[in-house]
Amino acid sequence: MSNAQLIYGLHAVHSLLRRHPERVLELRLAERRDDPRVRAIESLARECGTKVVRVDAQALQRALGDVAHQGVAADVVPLAPWSEDDLVSALEHAHCPLVLALDGVQDPHNLGACLRSADACGALAVVVPKDRAAHLTPVVRKVAAGAAESVPLVTVTNLVRTLKLLKEAQLWVTGADAEAPKAASEVDYSGGTVLVLGAEGSGLRQLTRLTCDHLVRLPRLGSVESLNVSVAAGMLLYEVVRQRSNKA
Amino acid sequence: MSNAQLIYGLHAVHSLLRRHPERVLELRLAERRDDPRVRAIESLARECGTKVVRVDAQALQRALGDVAHQGVAADVVPLAPWSEDDLVSALEHAHCPLVLALDGVQDPHNLGACLRSADACGALAVVVPKDRAAHLTPVVRKVAAGAAESVPLVTVTNLVRTLKLLKEAQLWVTGADAEAPKAASEVDYSGGTVLVLGAEGSGLRQLTRLTCDHLVRLPRLGSVESLNVSVAAGMLLYEVVRQRSNKA
Repeated sequence: MSNAQLIYGLHAVHSLLRRHPERVLELRLAERRDDPRVRAIESLARECGTKVVRVDAQALQRALGDVAHQGVAADVVPLAPWSEDDLVSALEHAHCPLVLALDGVQDPHNLGACLRSADACGALAVVVPKDRAAHLTPVVRKVAAGAAESVPLVTVTNLVRTLKLLKEAQLWVTGADAEAPKAASEVDYSGGTVLVLGAEGSGLRQLTRLTCDHLVRLPRLGSVESLNVSVAAGMLLYEVVRQRSNKA
Repeated sequence: MSNAQLIYGLHAVHSLLRRHPERVLELRLAERRDDPRVRAIESLARECGTKVVRVDAQALQRALGDVAHQGVAADVVPLAPWSEDDLVSALEHAHCPLVLALDGVQDPHNLGACLRSADACGALAVVVPKDRAAHLTPVVRKVAAGAAESVPLVTVTNLVRTLKLLKEAQLWVTGADAEAPKAASEVDYSGGTVLVLGAEGSGLRQLTRLTCDHLVRLPRLGSVESLNVSVAAGMLLYEVVRQRSNKA
């Protein structure tokens, strides 16, 4: 169990038990924690045959650090990274897939926050190039707040080639570009969508930019050069969810 | 000049020179940097009587660290913090003001990123309570990427009292709440707007929540408990800008 990852929080643990009970090795509940939501998680775990242990709340806090664990944590089998082939084959079964691609995001906090937003907005996967990019480290997992165990990270050799594969699979590729004439809300994201964000400062690389079907800008009404890349990713993901839920 | 702050980048420096030339003490241009945008900044600075110096590009990089400075930086008079009175009096002259309030955000990275998004989305100010909250530190200024010099931070003794003052000034207060029945896009932000975000984990405090005119939720389609607070702030700010630009 040395490779197990600890996830925490009522919603996160319940959601993983519901979707992937086979990945939950052990459910840890804080002693004296007893309310309907905790009981629902506990009975779901018992139905799934998952081991349930009661632990000291302070020990749980020590294991998790300064997070709001709500008295609930789980040891889970880490999510296996996806290959490009895994991604393409997952697309075949996905309805209106949403994929986030990060073109050279090197900061682990930004990658972690992007995974977290990708999870919250229902993205199928996050794609990063093998070189000049942050990868799954303990810092990334911590900042992702559980999303590293729910959203697969796809590390690819050549991001442009992957974007072309996604286009062949009928996804539309939209890149964020500060100078784009179109606002993010002027593109229709009702079909399969790939959102591409570039590195802070340099933005999308030229070849990546040329591969995009649309380039869109985000608000820049003030003085700063650009948004934080994880905030920019969050705004675009939000826009996709907003449009799709309006149509639902 | 020991208190001066260094801002950088073509857009940020140009924007500050245009809006507040009196706050720019010195313009630093990298040697051999010469293109139309740099020349425009240089001539604007000379018109304003601002001192212009040519500096070694590597020295500029050393002074600024690993950022995309584009060969342009400026020593600026730090933005004076606002009192609650300053905020209320600024509201009198503002058309459809947008204010961001952070209820107990303690992480300096999150405060910095929120300032940056607030600037990009045209917010008038960011309000934080004096206690249990991050304040303007060098880390915050760095993460804010210049926004600490463009968006005033208002530190208040009692956030709920300030929200009530803002309501009296005809602003509508919308708080982010994971359990809210309304989606963020279901509220109309065309009037003066205050967006309130709570601490990660605990969310809005009970009294803050009760003071809000609307509570709205952000996407939570996956497993994670919540979004990063600066991403959540970015999504809400984005939604306000989106609605307002649609109506313009």
